[in-house]
Amino acid sequence: MPPELAEAIERLSPAELHEAWPLLLPEDRIEAFRTLDPAVSDDFFLGLSAPNQAALLLALPEGERRLWMRLLAPDDAADVVQNVPTRDREGLLSLLDDVARHEVRGLLAYAEDDAGGLMNPRFARVRPDMTVDEAIIYLRRQVRERPGSLHYAYVTDQDQKLVGVISFSELFGARQDQKVSEIMRTSVVSAPESMDQEDLSRLFSRHHLVALPVVDAMGRLKGVVTADDIVEVISEEDTEDIQKMGGTEALGEPYLQIQLTDMIKKRAGWLSALFLGEMLTATAMGYFEGEIARAVVLALFVPLVISSGGNSGSQATTLVIRALALGEVRLKDWWRVVRREFLSGLGLGTILGSIGVVRIIAWQLLFHTYGNHAVVIALTVGFSLVGVVLWGTLAGSMLPFVLRRLGFDPASASAPFVATLVDVTGLIIYFTTAKIIMTGTLL
Amino acid sequence: MPPELAEAIERLSPAELHEAWPLLLPEDRIEAFRTLDPAVSDDFFLGLSAPNQAALLLALPEGERRLWMRLLAPDDAADVVQNVPTRDREGLLSLLDDVARHEVRGLLAYAEDDAGGLMNPRFARVRPDMTVDEAIIYLRRQVRERPGSLHYAYVTDQDQKLVGVISFSELFGARQDQKVSEIMRTSVVSAPESMDQEDLSRLFSRHHLVALPVVDAMGRLKGVVTADDIVEVISEEDTEDIQKMGGTEALGEPYLQIQLTDMIKKRAGWLSALFLGEMLTATAMGYFEGEIARAVVLALFVPLVISSGGNSGSQATTLVIRALALGEVRLKDWWRVVRREFLSGLGLGTILGSIGVVRIIAWQLLFHTYGNHAVVIALTVGFSLVGVVLWGTLAGSMLPFVLRRLGFDPASASAPFVATLVDVTGLIIYFTTAKIIMTGTLL
Repeated sequence: MPPELAEAIERLSPAELHEAWPLLLPEDRIEAFRTLDPAVSDDFFLGLSAPNQAALLLALPEGERRLWMRLLAPDDAADVVQNVPTRDREGLLSLLDDVARHEVRGLLAYAEDDAGGLMNPRFARVRPDMTVDEAIIYLRRQVRERPGSLHYAYVTDQDQKLVGVISFSELFGARQDQKVSEIMRTSVVSAPESMDQEDLSRLFSRHHLVALPVVDAMGRLKGVVTADDIVEVISEEDTEDIQKMGGTEALGEPYLQIQLTDMIKKRAGWLSALFLGEMLTATAMGYFEGEIARAVVLALFVPLVISSGGNSGSQATTLVIRALALGEVRLKDWWRVVRREFLSGLGLGTILGSIGVVRIIAWQLLFHTYGNHAVVIALTVGFSLVGVVLWGTLAGSMLPFVLRRLGFDPASASAPFVATLVDVTGLIIYFTTAKIIMTGTLL
Repeated sequence: MPPELAEAIERLSPAELHEAWPLLLPEDRIEAFRTLDPAVSDDFFLGLSAPNQAALLLALPEGERRLWMRLLAPDDAADVVQNVPTRDREGLLSLLDDVARHEVRGLLAYAEDDAGGLMNPRFARVRPDMTVDEAIIYLRRQVRERPGSLHYAYVTDQDQKLVGVISFSELFGARQDQKVSEIMRTSVVSAPESMDQEDLSRLFSRHHLVALPVVDAMGRLKGVVTADDIVEVISEEDTEDIQKMGGTEALGEPYLQIQLTDMIKKRAGWLSALFLGEMLTATAMGYFEGEIARAVVLALFVPLVISSGGNSGSQATTLVIRALALGEVRLKDWWRVVRREFLSGLGLGTILGSIGVVRIIAWQLLFHTYGNHAVVIALTVGFSLVGVVLWGTLAGSMLPFVLRRLGFDPASASAPFVATLVDVTGLIIYFTTAKIIMTGTLL
């Protein structure tokens, strides 16, 4: 590293270094990491994302790795292990103490994005028949033996089944001779190990949870997922959805970090597929070549009409994809959505159609742009717009349902996908309307 | 309520009732709420969103409101008060006890989406010179007097300035005679009262936080924001962004709940604006009417060429908007983005251009579709595609920067907005390329 850069990095606060991190070369990261005050380097390391933690660990000499690896909570350690090449995994696992290694191996058996993969297997447990005082003494021992960020004590019976929950602060506030069973909350929201992270985040959001216990099929407590993990999950899931809705594959890496060739690959796939679909517009236009030759004015409004269908379809698909993702709308609601979008499409189409008619008549009055046929042109454009917008709206709102029904991600019903779909059919609607209205005059 | 419906509702679990809630009429909601087992009705009420809590409270007879109002933490109570008509606010506030009312009034002075508006003013505090044992006794008293879901004890000096933090579980695990100052963490991430909720959620996500202390300009501790609130904030902010990126105003209500007229209003604005912009395509096409009349074949590829620009622009704007929202890219990175998108656009344009050329030549060989001019047509379409895709990519990636620079929300650089922008200019690129390549042959 050039000395000026080294100096510049040394002047950064930990938060600034955090921001600059993606921009540093791997070898500069190590140097930068070593310039950190020991008092803040722990927090800095813990604040890195799992892929960055993994990269940093592998870049450090083996002797230094143990310290950092042991700093990680088991669920975070499992994430790091999942982010290194297979050949390095056993090496990292061997740095942990026996208990932690056992826990991490248990977590690695779960899918990364299941409740089981997100949970921390360390939690504080108490028995229902303990007094508050006994519970506090018991918790103290647990916390001292296996430190971690614990916020609730979970009450389990002799079969390890979850029967209640009590927050540390509630325990603090209770009279010392009360029984845990008298003060615990018994209506506990819990999640099965196999719950997908998207459903999990909906559960957190619906119940305003800070932590959620995970239980197996027998109701036995296996671990705890905390809201800080869910904050990341939601943000990641939304990023994926947004990128898909924009018509690319999910990048999976920050925009400025992904290799340019990888980014082009992730974008070229959908773009080429849409291009192939869009080629049908040339075919469709070909069928109406005769009409265009007779009335070139028809060609002038092609972009206006089809893009209006694309835009209204983009609105509809976006609203429906998001409503599906939030669970506001379910598959079985499709008919309610059809009815809403039918009325919306009709209303929006009428608005755009009217603007179109007014524009054509106005240009005719002002500039006499359209010769003797302004009225038929205005009617053709106006009625086509109603039809195309209505169709765009319906197609855009139904495509996410169809994709989900077929087992695909509804977010793939991107604005460009819907626009392409509607372009081809929009042309047919437009030229058919033209034939009906203009035959005898322009055609 | 018809008796069958009442029966059906009574059979619902609280979680199912939660899901069905948006579909129930206001009067049915009260009846349904009353069928709930008292053991779960607290959690059910606390799990409702603030607007739903507000509506339910107002629908209940005055005598019943007090109980529910007092169940709410001060920050949640403030949210509820903000969700009722102004004339009902004092009534609800008067139901609280004096301390809580004072706290809620304090919170109402903050903007709803600032750290100050999101924070809970109840937190547990200890002094640095207390022993662990003293701290626990002191915390017990605080928790008993002002119960709440507390996860950390904040260490403040005699000026109420935040000097450290310690989790309840760390206190539990420490030796009883240790000083708080010896075991507390001193590198505390905190937020100013005025921090916007979007920046706040980035802070939570970057540092994996469960709770974040909020301090005033003097560094004095004012309250604590917890991750469960942030989970909601992130989801709401993303929903707004996604809806804007789809080319509508943010709905602000769940899809199936918003009045149809309101939804049409929120969609018609952008759709009409884009339609007016798209009218320029008719004007642009008008300039090239002569060329189209001479070579109708040119018109056939208009949708294909301009939609490719729109699709590539949609990809670019989506990726950049999201990267800006996540803080992966900042305003000052615009030039790095230009360079990346220039190369991406060139690459993607070349891919699409090549597919276009192959398609035209293939059709020519197979069906002799394009008469004697297949080669100039193929070249025109091919080169236009490179130009239009490159331009779409650059325009799409820069528009969010321009909007943010001008003080607008970058998410308004929606796929339809970019597509409209690129349609007009794409036509000019296409017909200009045609003129250059075809003059002397087709034109």
